[in-house]
Amino acid sequence: MHRARSSTAFLFDLDGTLIDSVYQHVLAWKEALDAEGVELSVWRIHRKIGMSGGLFTNILLRETGLEITEERLARLHQRHVEAFNRQHTQGLVRPLPGARELLAYLTEQGYPWAIATSGRMATAAHNIAALGVDPSKVPVITRDQVRHAKPDPDLFLAAAEKLGVDIEQSLVIGDSIWDMLAAQRARALGVGLLSGGYSEDELARSGALRVYDDPADLLKHIDEVAARL
Amino acid sequence: MHRARSSTAFLFDLDGTLIDSVYQHVLAWKEALDAEGVELSVWRIHRKIGMSGGLFTNILLRETGLEITEERLARLHQRHVEAFNRQHTQGLVRPLPGARELLAYLTEQGYPWAIATSGRMATAAHNIAALGVDPSKVPVITRDQVRHAKPDPDLFLAAAEKLGVDIEQSLVIGDSIWDMLAAQRARALGVGLLSGGYSEDELARSGALRVYDDPADLLKHIDEVAARL
Repeated sequence: MHRARSSTAFLFDLDGTLIDSVYQHVLAWKEALDAEGVELSVWRIHRKIGMSGGLFTNILLRETGLEITEERLARLHQRHVEAFNRQHTQGLVRPLPGARELLAYLTEQGYPWAIATSGRMATAAHNIAALGVDPSKVPVITRDQVRHAKPDPDLFLAAAEKLGVDIEQSLVIGDSIWDMLAAQRARALGVGLLSGGYSEDELARSGALRVYDDPADLLKHIDEVAARL
Repeated sequence: MHRARSSTAFLFDLDGTLIDSVYQHVLAWKEALDAEGVELSVWRIHRKIGMSGGLFTNILLRETGLEITEERLARLHQRHVEAFNRQHTQGLVRPLPGARELLAYLTEQGYPWAIATSGRMATAAHNIAALGVDPSKVPVITRDQVRHAKPDPDLFLAAAEKLGVDIEQSLVIGDSIWDMLAAQRARALGVGLLSGGYSEDELARSGALRVYDDPADLLKHIDEVAARL
């Protein structure tokens, strides 16, 4: 049965929001930084995850006082991709509880939805496949397609545009403070998930309207944030 | 120069407090749980880390509804130890910034200090060696030596007793809410570090008197929490 479209659109972050991959990304960055001789504590990497990879590596290198060269950045990104995809091959990265069910529910009910990730297609492709999402049917905006990634609003603005929805009628679902900041900067509403390992307080203080455990918990409480059909 | 002993003793947690090992422990547990067919999101493992390993696995198995058998628990612990020590062998686990300097400062100034960890010697031994600590000179209390680990107060009470200091004149330095709860239950004062990936808010709400980034940051602000000599 086809229902009338709701006025609420859902713009999803990917890592930590639909896929249980944040901690693997964190240790993949740790491995890449170690190989470059950049000594950085793991929790500091975790707190930067989810922002633009370029911004992330620039900030890290600036904080550690190392010179930022094109070659060093390219090596860091390459090593991160390799380390992350190695974990993926081992089957250690999977969708979060309720992720597939939530997306299926939205599709069935006629809510427009899209995915907008600070990652590049090189790491996102595995994750999108694991979710059973067909990128020819669902808008997937990656870092390759916009000038600035999160916390800039570009990714979510591009996702709303591709869906043909008003960003001000959209919810941004994310696990990191960078998603919540980007949501506010785009004039969308942010909904936080704890599944990336940030705390409720960190998400609320960066603008989350509501915070849920994970996609399963959001699905259970969907009427709190989405327009009724 | 030998100075008079201060009335403040320092009781340190190990993982996430002196050693940058929390995220590796988290993914080692993930690997062990996966091998047992226990599907659990990584962030939920992170939020339980630092509590008694026995309590931890009991809670996890209870939450996932699986039957708790002695054999299953023994396999889980064995797989966790193997996965963690594999990361250690790869050189990916190191002391946190300022950890060695902080311990050296306390020794030099004559502050009594000890280590009290919910881990067993099987995983702690590598970490203690990495810190350059000689267990024959410094009290190291592991889970093997007490009936109940954190959030029960036993580990910190045993550490204070071994040092011959009053627990009420002691500071408990830890990165997890379990350290802070155990500190309060022991009537010590808790000092939180962000280096295990918990948030400032989570640590403050579980009783931390003050919260610092890591051992280097605590050393910089030591006069805020320790009696002056």
